[in-house]
Amino acid sequence: MKFYDTPGAPNPRRVRMFMAEKGLSIPSVAVDLGKRENKSEDFTAINPRQRTPALMLDDGTVITESMAICRYLEALHPEPNLFGRDAREIGEIEMWARRIELHFLMTVAAAFRHLHPAMAEMEVPQVKEWGEVNRGRIVDELTILDRHLEGRDFIACGRFTVADITALVAVDFVRPTRVPVPEDLVHLARWRASVAARPSAKA
Amino acid sequence: MKFYDTPGAPNPRRVRMFMAEKGLSIPSVAVDLGKRENKSEDFTAINPRQRTPALMLDDGTVITESMAICRYLEALHPEPNLFGRDAREIGEIEMWARRIELHFLMTVAAAFRHLHPAMAEMEVPQVKEWGEVNRGRIVDELTILDRHLEGRDFIACGRFTVADITALVAVDFVRPTRVPVPEDLVHLARWRASVAARPSAKA
Repeated sequence: MKFYDTPGAPNPRRVRMFMAEKGLSIPSVAVDLGKRENKSEDFTAINPRQRTPALMLDDGTVITESMAICRYLEALHPEPNLFGRDAREIGEIEMWARRIELHFLMTVAAAFRHLHPAMAEMEVPQVKEWGEVNRGRIVDELTILDRHLEGRDFIACGRFTVADITALVAVDFVRPTRVPVPEDLVHLARWRASVAARPSAKA
Repeated sequence: MKFYDTPGAPNPRRVRMFMAEKGLSIPSVAVDLGKRENKSEDFTAINPRQRTPALMLDDGTVITESMAICRYLEALHPEPNLFGRDAREIGEIEMWARRIELHFLMTVAAAFRHLHPAMAEMEVPQVKEWGEVNRGRIVDELTILDRHLEGRDFIACGRFTVADITALVAVDFVRPTRVPVPEDLVHLARWRASVAARPSAKA
């Protein structure tokens, strides 16, 4: 297998962290978005969407989309379980992973992509008004997460799951939007410190 | 179990179609978005995001997010399989389901939500420029799907899966954006006719 990675980008980080939690070490190829390597003919053949991450299997089959790669790896390496063991866990983890991804991570991403000067060539056109609307929602999303984490060590099922991975990546992705994380979100801060201390957070 | 449904809305339709493919009949409660029933105190207690669908289990536990509900139901009722049987199928189906959901369905939804007058009270603020950008991408997304379907009866794994459900719902959701589906997309048209003829498409 070969993992097409972009250090510094949030989605590849989700998969790197997932692999680290599983104890997997997959050879990786860095795709530099700044040098537009994702737009090259070679990489477009791998992922026509020109995005990272992508996982190439030994027979040349390519899996794209971060959560599809993670689910593929979970099926091959079931332990430690990160997507749920039974119907209830599966439903609860997917609900929280999607709430965080679709409502929080995507809000942060939209603010970053539509406002940051470095994204002007990647996000065409940048719609500043849409960026500002999303930027204005980030503190609300952080607050929702903070309230959920009151009295909880993890997002779902009382243990570390893929929902915590997406949440950590989303929280860390707030920084380039220059929205300050309110200091009174103490549950979020406690959870973040605990999850960020895991070795996988440095992957 | 109780299913909180909104007839006519795309996300609840995904779950209804999924349940119909499984042969499941779950009592449902209609939540009328036009009457703002989703904003009521009762429904906000069920889903603080004030969105449908939601599934309430017999002990009062609520699962929201369409795909979380579908995965919960798949775990309880594995046949017919709609999310994949082994690692490769799981990866392939999730990749296509996400490509279609995140790049196509969400593009159509953004065009609808930010441009349609009926959505002015639901999507606050409507960002017309963002709606137009997305509206302008719909034919590209339809064309990508058409090319993928050349020589294929289904989106993934050579059989009907949850990816076909999301794709059908996305294609049908193009109509209220008033973007005409190009007639030369013959593979898409063939696939659509075949999938729309399934009894579940009327669920």
